[in-house]
Amino acid sequence: MTALPILIDCDPGQDDFINLLLAFASPEDVRVEAITTVGGNVPLPHTHRNARLACDLVGRDDIAVSAGCPQPLLRPLETAEYLHGESGIDGYDFDAPRLALSTEHGVDTIVRIVRARCDERLTLVATGPLTNVAMALKKAPDIGARIAEIVIMGGAMREGGNVTPSAEFNIAVDPHAADIVFRSGIPIALFGLDVTHQFVMGRARRERLRAIETPAAVAVADMLDFSVRYDESKYGTDGAPLHDPCTLLYLLAPDLFDLKRCAVGVETESVLTYGHTAVDFWGVTDRASNALWAYAIDHEAAFELLCERITRL
Amino acid sequence: MTALPILIDCDPGQDDFINLLLAFASPEDVRVEAITTVGGNVPLPHTHRNARLACDLVGRDDIAVSAGCPQPLLRPLETAEYLHGESGIDGYDFDAPRLALSTEHGVDTIVRIVRARCDERLTLVATGPLTNVAMALKKAPDIGARIAEIVIMGGAMREGGNVTPSAEFNIAVDPHAADIVFRSGIPIALFGLDVTHQFVMGRARRERLRAIETPAAVAVADMLDFSVRYDESKYGTDGAPLHDPCTLLYLLAPDLFDLKRCAVGVETESVLTYGHTAVDFWGVTDRASNALWAYAIDHEAAFELLCERITRL
Amino acid sequence: MTALPILIDCDPGQDDFINLLLAFASPEDVRVEAITTVGGNVPLPHTHRNARLACDLVGRDDIAVSAGCPQPLLRPLETAEYLHGESGIDGYDFDAPRLALSTEHGVDTIVRIVRARCDERLTLVATGPLTNVAMALKKAPDIGARIAEIVIMGGAMREGGNVTPSAEFNIAVDPHAADIVFRSGIPIALFGLDVTHQFVMGRARRERLRAIETPAAVAVADMLDFSVRYDESKYGTDGAPLHDPCTLLYLLAPDLFDLKRCAVGVETESVLTYGHTAVDFWGVTDRASNALWAYAIDHEAAFELLCERITRL
Amino acid sequence: MTALPILIDCDPGQDDFINLLLAFASPEDVRVEAITTVGGNVPLPHTHRNARLACDLVGRDDIAVSAGCPQPLLRPLETAEYLHGESGIDGYDFDAPRLALSTEHGVDTIVRIVRARCDERLTLVATGPLTNVAMALKKAPDIGARIAEIVIMGGAMREGGNVTPSAEFNIAVDPHAADIVFRSGIPIALFGLDVTHQFVMGRARRERLRAIETPAAVAVADMLDFSVRYDESKYGTDGAPLHDPCTLLYLLAPDLFDLKRCAVGVETESVLTYGHTAVDFWGVTDRASNALWAYAIDHEAAFELLCERITRL
Repeated sequence: MTALPILIDCDPGQDDFINLLLAFASPEDVRVEAITTVGGNVPLPHTHRNARLACDLVGRDDIAVSAGCPQPLLRPLETAEYLHGESGIDGYDFDAPRLALSTEHGVDTIVRIVRARCDERLTLVATGPLTNVAMALKKAPDIGARIAEIVIMGGAMREGGNVTPSAEFNIAVDPHAADIVFRSGIPIALFGLDVTHQFVMGRARRERLRAIETPAAVAVADMLDFSVRYDESKYGTDGAPLHDPCTLLYLLAPDLFDLKRCAVGVETESVLTYGHTAVDFWGVTDRASNALWAYAIDHEAAFELLCERITRL
Repeated sequence: MTALPILIDCDPGQDDFINLLLAFASPEDVRVEAITTVGGNVPLPHTHRNARLACDLVGRDDIAVSAGCPQPLLRPLETAEYLHGESGIDGYDFDAPRLALSTEHGVDTIVRIVRARCDERLTLVATGPLTNVAMALKKAPDIGARIAEIVIMGGAMREGGNVTPSAEFNIAVDPHAADIVFRSGIPIALFGLDVTHQFVMGRARRERLRAIETPAAVAVADMLDFSVRYDESKYGTDGAPLHDPCTLLYLLAPDLFDLKRCAVGVETESVLTYGHTAVDFWGVTDRASNALWAYAIDHEAAFELLCERITRL
Repeated sequence: MTALPILIDCDPGQDDFINLLLAFASPEDVRVEAITTVGGNVPLPHTHRNARLACDLVGRDDIAVSAGCPQPLLRPLETAEYLHGESGIDGYDFDAPRLALSTEHGVDTIVRIVRARCDERLTLVATGPLTNVAMALKKAPDIGARIAEIVIMGGAMREGGNVTPSAEFNIAVDPHAADIVFRSGIPIALFGLDVTHQFVMGRARRERLRAIETPAAVAVADMLDFSVRYDESKYGTDGAPLHDPCTLLYLLAPDLFDLKRCAVGVETESVLTYGHTAVDFWGVTDRASNALWAYAIDHEAAFELLCERITRL
Repeated sequence: MTALPILIDCDPGQDDFINLLLAFASPEDVRVEAITTVGGNVPLPHTHRNARLACDLVGRDDIAVSAGCPQPLLRPLETAEYLHGESGIDGYDFDAPRLALSTEHGVDTIVRIVRARCDERLTLVATGPLTNVAMALKKAPDIGARIAEIVIMGGAMREGGNVTPSAEFNIAVDPHAADIVFRSGIPIALFGLDVTHQFVMGRARRERLRAIETPAAVAVADMLDFSVRYDESKYGTDGAPLHDPCTLLYLLAPDLFDLKRCAVGVETESVLTYGHTAVDFWGVTDRASNALWAYAIDHEAAFELLCERITRL
């Protein structure tokens, strides 16, 4: 069986970084056609640097990393340095990236890579605000038919929100982009807080990763040690959820997750509820289903798979 | 210790009806000064009839039951006969009420009763849409300072919604009224789906109530047998949540509940999210706290208390 | 022909005050059943005092003046002392009113007076925010069928707005109340800025009124001299529009106005456009007509009628 | 003095077509660097064909015409064949265009042309929905500083709206794009209905144009004869406004217009008022000015200039 061609649009962020490593560690399963970055967890210059550092770490100088949009469509960018640190990957000790940035705009990279597929359709993995993906769909609507699935970290149902009481960060940062993507008709799989909050990196799991002892594993452990501090301090938990890698774990082993086909809408304008994902889990409306909503994860098996893959690097 | 003076604004509904019985069964704890009704679960003529039937059942011909507003402030009334039946108390076999309806408007009853208190402040219990309460506050803003607390069944955080994916019925039916109440500055305690969904009347509990064998207990069991059908059929559960009695249970035994002081806002206009309660449980905004939000119930002790009180009737 | 029974709901304001005088001066045409006041141009205690002063000025101690709602339904009250002065009727030299305030709430006065009509229906004249009218309609929906017409000063189409770029004061102060009234199905006649801006009290007209020399006429001239200052200073005009008397002028002589039956909607929530009246003058939507929209006035004949009536007092 | 470098983004439309002719007729004043088209009056395939036909008509095979976005950012495209005819330029008898469509995407053309300027800044002329311009600004925010001015046909203040009671077509079709452009900080000049409704092509003016007898002039007259029918039938007027050429007329002779620096906001979401431009003409808010708002035109001189330029072709 051939590897699934994917393009990863991201805003690293420690968890985006780990998600990239997970992709690089799984060449039999996924083939990374390109990486595009967007302003999100940290500003755009940091996110494309961090994506290139992930390539550097595993020696992938063949990957095109391009920079997309620095700002959401209509809202000003809200970043999350309080969680990720100034660099976005605080905890990881890095130098300037060796991999050069592509001269192509990230939005154009998405359009080009999708159109380049002849006999197979591309899967988009999106772990940041959906600005680049939405821009690509608006600029080149023809690509919609050539995208197999958009696998997204974003949204919340039972878990309410993290950046506001009613909204998850990636969707809240660019709710208009999310609205464009969710109404595009392209198959969507959504990994929101309901499932990522079940995938928590406590001390024991971080120790387990560190014990792998490879540079990649130590980098992962270091980044997690930093990024869990915010939750541990705010909520008094042991560790914090690991969000973005749920997207790759789904591509590697979909059975890890329980998913339900639902109508998911996005609030775009209300001051109170912008970015809220209205997930019609129980079918109380007559809105048509447009997404697979992940609501449970076999978090132990998922962690085993994560460790197994990180060990390969 | 003297009984707490309360006024109950409601839209019976089987669970409102049971809540009234709970109040009548607890004269040492609460003194029912009046009952006002509102259009909600079923239209207004049904809700004031049903409230009077509750008085009839326990022989309380001294209670003033008055009819308030038939319609929400701005939205058209949405009712829930699919759950409560045409009468609102299907399952209960009733005749025409013996207790006459008060000639006073419900909104005026609220204003009069609140103003009548000399040395103590009134507690409002609201188990329907908040139309009457909001109208009273707008008509006579002075009463705000004389209300000790408004104890409300309404809202949802983790439990999303029941009438839409993002909103609970009582708040969704009249979100503008809820907004007026929530921003009034009056102390508020909110019992939403997060806690009522923990208080489920399965078959064993309904059998236990029926075994009390008094007319009141049998009426409760009959009404529950009917009203759980919708959830049992839709969700495949054993039984269904008992919503409104959480308000009286809180007044009788506040320790049954875990509550947290939060900022709670209401979405009033969005087509997608109207009626959504944005509960800032984790303090991620700088909005000032305005409500006690109930998030857990000792449901076994609560059921014991319910049985004990119903037995008294 | 018998005089038309009317109830005037107002927030005096110099122009509301002049409108009251116009009604008192026209007993063959209109019979003032009651006056209710609302918070608007100035806070409620000022508006009911001013309404009583108008009664005092013409010796009408038989009129019930009652106070309604101090605050809009959902928004905080915005007042306009910058235009009307602190008293609301600056320019007029007054003492404490002789006429006592009714003990009845203004909302209840509206309901009672409307219901009291046996063989004729009441006309409501509303020259302030529509809070009282909306509250009466929500409290007692039955009165709708007994109201012949609601004649409103409010809204704007070509003239945009005065309190915001897109909204007229009376509607902007309580857009939710306006929405309730506009969607009530009761016949409505709307006199907005498009027509009131054609009815300007320049120096010559104010001199003409003063020359009548009666106390009422001098009071009118004094109040106009004060209230035109704001516009004269801001816009460099000679005089300023006289808004509220367009409502009585319409009842006295409807042919003074050009009116068109239109669908008129009100924006309730947008931060940018709240209070905007969307007047479908050209029938570009399929919304059903709900109002007569006044778009032209024979301002010379109207001024003659105003003078003639003021002279009578 | 050198000609002003301009890029015209348009959705021809008879009036866009005439605006292109006006540009081609004025080489001493403006130098057309490129033409980009957008879905608007008619779908995108028609708008880029029509733009190329305008080039054909005047023998400009050197102009790059590229196609941009077929759909607005968030709303579905509303077109106006009821006014423009199926082709968008009904009245004009055309063959297939000789000029080939550029292979470059319109959004990229805007970005490239703006960036290409060394010592001078580009002026954008936008006579359709602002989708392409907004997309270019979001994709390449750096271009903002290199744009001298965006001269836009769009919006309404006194003239309310044409496509809804409160909104003008170009803005209503893509209000989110307009919001992006209006909040970009780039100098903006807005020619909305308030001014275009003063520039009416009655029978006499159309005859005057036809009498020029050149192919271009006859084409203009033919297109006007068709496009005035809708207004003549609906409003009973002689002729109809000529909207888009106000933008070029402003660049050719700014003194033809009265303009005022204002804060202009756009309503993006309200079902009732989406696309409304809130023009703070009288400074009643504290919003910062972001646009020159045209409110009067010397329509006779403007028509003379139009004739003079069309005669040159």
